[in-house]
Amino acid sequence: MKAEESNKAEEQPETAAEAAAAEEEAAAAQPETTYKSLLLSAHGGYDKVKLQVKKGSPVPKAGEVLVRVKACGLNFADLMARQGVYDRLPSLPVSLGMECAGIVEELGEGVTDRQVGDKVMVLNRFGLWQELVTIQTNHTFLMPDGMSFEEGAAFLVNYITAYMILFHFGNLRPNQSVLIHMAAGGVGTAAVQLCKTVDNITIFGTASASKHENLKENGVLHPIDYRSNDYVEEVRKVSPKGVDIVMDPLGGTDTCKAFNLLKPMGTLVIYGAANLLTGQKKNIMALAKSWWNQFSVTAMQLISANKSVCGFHLGHLDEELELITSVVSTLLDLYKQGKIKPKIDTMFSFEQVGDAMRQMQEKKNVGKVILIPDMPKEEAEKDATEEAKKDAKSEGKKDAKEETKKDAKGEAKKDAKKDAKKDAKEDAKKDAKEDAKKDAKKEEN
Amino acid sequence: MKAEESNKAEEQPETAAEAAAAEEEAAAAQPETTYKSLLLSAHGGYDKVKLQVKKGSPVPKAGEVLVRVKACGLNFADLMARQGVYDRLPSLPVSLGMECAGIVEELGEGVTDRQVGDKVMVLNRFGLWQELVTIQTNHTFLMPDGMSFEEGAAFLVNYITAYMILFHFGNLRPNQSVLIHMAAGGVGTAAVQLCKTVDNITIFGTASASKHENLKENGVLHPIDYRSNDYVEEVRKVSPKGVDIVMDPLGGTDTCKAFNLLKPMGTLVIYGAANLLTGQKKNIMALAKSWWNQFSVTAMQLISANKSVCGFHLGHLDEELELITSVVSTLLDLYKQGKIKPKIDTMFSFEQVGDAMRQMQEKKNVGKVILIPDMPKEEAEKDATEEAKKDAKSEGKKDAKEETKKDAKGEAKKDAKKDAKKDAKEDAKKDAKEDAKKDAKKEEN
Repeated sequence: MKAEESNKAEEQPETAAEAAAAEEEAAAAQPETTYKSLLLSAHGGYDKVKLQVKKGSPVPKAGEVLVRVKACGLNFADLMARQGVYDRLPSLPVSLGMECAGIVEELGEGVTDRQVGDKVMVLNRFGLWQELVTIQTNHTFLMPDGMSFEEGAAFLVNYITAYMILFHFGNLRPNQSVLIHMAAGGVGTAAVQLCKTVDNITIFGTASASKHENLKENGVLHPIDYRSNDYVEEVRKVSPKGVDIVMDPLGGTDTCKAFNLLKPMGTLVIYGAANLLTGQKKNIMALAKSWWNQFSVTAMQLISANKSVCGFHLGHLDEELELITSVVSTLLDLYKQGKIKPKIDTMFSFEQVGDAMRQMQEKKNVGKVILIPDMPKEEAEKDATEEAKKDAKSEGKKDAKEETKKDAKGEAKKDAKKDAKKDAKEDAKKDAKEDAKKDAKKEEN
Repeated sequence: MKAEESNKAEEQPETAAEAAAAEEEAAAAQPETTYKSLLLSAHGGYDKVKLQVKKGSPVPKAGEVLVRVKACGLNFADLMARQGVYDRLPSLPVSLGMECAGIVEELGEGVTDRQVGDKVMVLNRFGLWQELVTIQTNHTFLMPDGMSFEEGAAFLVNYITAYMILFHFGNLRPNQSVLIHMAAGGVGTAAVQLCKTVDNITIFGTASASKHENLKENGVLHPIDYRSNDYVEEVRKVSPKGVDIVMDPLGGTDTCKAFNLLKPMGTLVIYGAANLLTGQKKNIMALAKSWWNQFSVTAMQLISANKSVCGFHLGHLDEELELITSVVSTLLDLYKQGKIKPKIDTMFSFEQVGDAMRQMQEKKNVGKVILIPDMPKEEAEKDATEEAKKDAKSEGKKDAKEETKKDAKGEAKKDAKKDAKKDAKEDAKKDAKEDAKKDAKKEEN
């Protein structure tokens, strides 16, 4: 249940002579073992998550493995944790991070279900934004062939969340309709893909207008610009009775709107309070507003409307590993069948963690924001060689290079598109302002 | 959407000469056409539902059929309606009754999906406790071969309710656990049978001790006597984490207990407030108590516990006929496969409606309480002959007779068992009291 925080090599003496010898040998090859860790030192703004270089290497305990982390996923819970509004965190300082992907480098005592060299995805309540982590094996999931580390780091939290909301609580069935807020975000993208695995689902997705093209490509038949339109009205234009499922990561008044927008027998799943995140720091006004607007429902309201209200938070399911494991198994089958595929928005180095958080908090992302502990060229070469050993056919190296090229191209294209759209928008705004001014003058006359 | 209340033959002039002629002919054969109707004249006790004999015969409008009712089902909503705590009723006087089964006797204009002689089950918000009803065809469902009218009158409300609670809101899956309150009642019996259609469901069922043998026969592994035991404790003994689904027809504090008894990802479905029905008349104290104890839940409580709360009321789904029809179709398949079968507790004549309501309100029933409009011997013969015509092999008559015999035998046996148990219980009580007295005396000394 816990990720290794401290420098075990310094604190704990080795118990076996062999281990000590191996350690020495490793030390000889790599003169000084260090690893990067992103630590939350105090609650507050983006600058409160700091890069620290730790010495030595953590040692996996019985039942644990040591994982060299290649990519980490960013989640809303990390942002809430930074601001001090996430209650599932130990006392500070603490390393953040609920998910990562990497390679098993060492096995703790009694570990038989994982091998050195295994590529794994890791899920934990915190502590995974580090270059090296020790973790119990039942928090690790083997990555399928062809999955990149970035995809691996974008898989667990978003797809488990979307799956359990849609299929466990929502009980999504053919011919139903779903409203997905923040449909271009990590969970949103996963939810849209999962909806597409069921026949004839009408998907409404909210996102700012600049992301609509992307939403349509992903399968959102009705993208809604929540900034310029009332999304309730937009949904009712298409589906007068409302929708069968609303996925609500917003909280506050949007939750009330969602409840009213449900069809009879409809289900509202509240899984966040993104409306709280209005600034870098904990916003007392937003908190107070949210408190007053906090959604509450009575038995009578539910009965007379035939409705269902659910709350979901993966961070509170950490004792339900059996359930989680069965969901991951289903999701990996869908991945192998090509039915779902994580969408990466941007990759940031550990050093750029502030920019990464801003990207997500300001809702600029389309897909997942990823943190990469370290990716100099030599390292990439080395990783590729190690992977090649395991894969025998050295496919890994080629894939990694191609993917990097592809990502770079994709990024460039996307940026160009974004810039073009932004320009167009600004032009439109200017025109609108001028028109408004003219109208105002006319009215004065 | 509406059942025919008034005497159409008297109030509305016939529009076609043929119809008038047919009417006359019918009148000649049956010197005076009358039909029985159970009317709620005012809110209050059992005596407020009165038998009235209406003259003439209601005439089906376009899209409607005239049904000769052979059996009616009794539901909690009828009891609530009598007491004035059911808001889905038009102004008084009104004929009660949400379900019945009978034979189509006449078709309204444009009806092509039903034929004279069809045996049908009927669902409506009210108005079905009458010997003759006119009803839109989409409120009627063809009875499968071999289903008796009593079964037909016990099928729709209970099985639709149990099915939608367990499979739409509850999303019941193999290896889960369910707590069913009032497990020996109409919905409870249906729910137990439906749970048995899924692999390895752990069923907890509450009922008074005298009904436990019956619950076990039906498939309830863990019957709980809620009068002498704390059901929460009893469930936790077997399932320390709680259960996946609680079906709650009780309301008040039991709803809070149910919420706490849910596992993570568990679902509570509230579908009644039987706790309100503490006496014959509307109980102001019970209402007040229920008001103060009214269950209410916030978004934060749901999220931090990963739970779902739903409200269900079939009476509020009367505009969702397409959905209902698809559920009935699934249920009829299960019936034909022998997986579900309505359990009849007792049959009462229309004249005994007060006793019928008392049987249910005092929770004496095991299975469904049925009202029979009229069943003198001659009538039974006639019905059987008419059915024989349609069935060609005259199986109907034999079945009807055999079923009647079987029911009578079953009733007699059950009564004998009940009496024996009651005696045993009273003896046990006496013994216990005497022991207690002795103990008390000893302590005094």
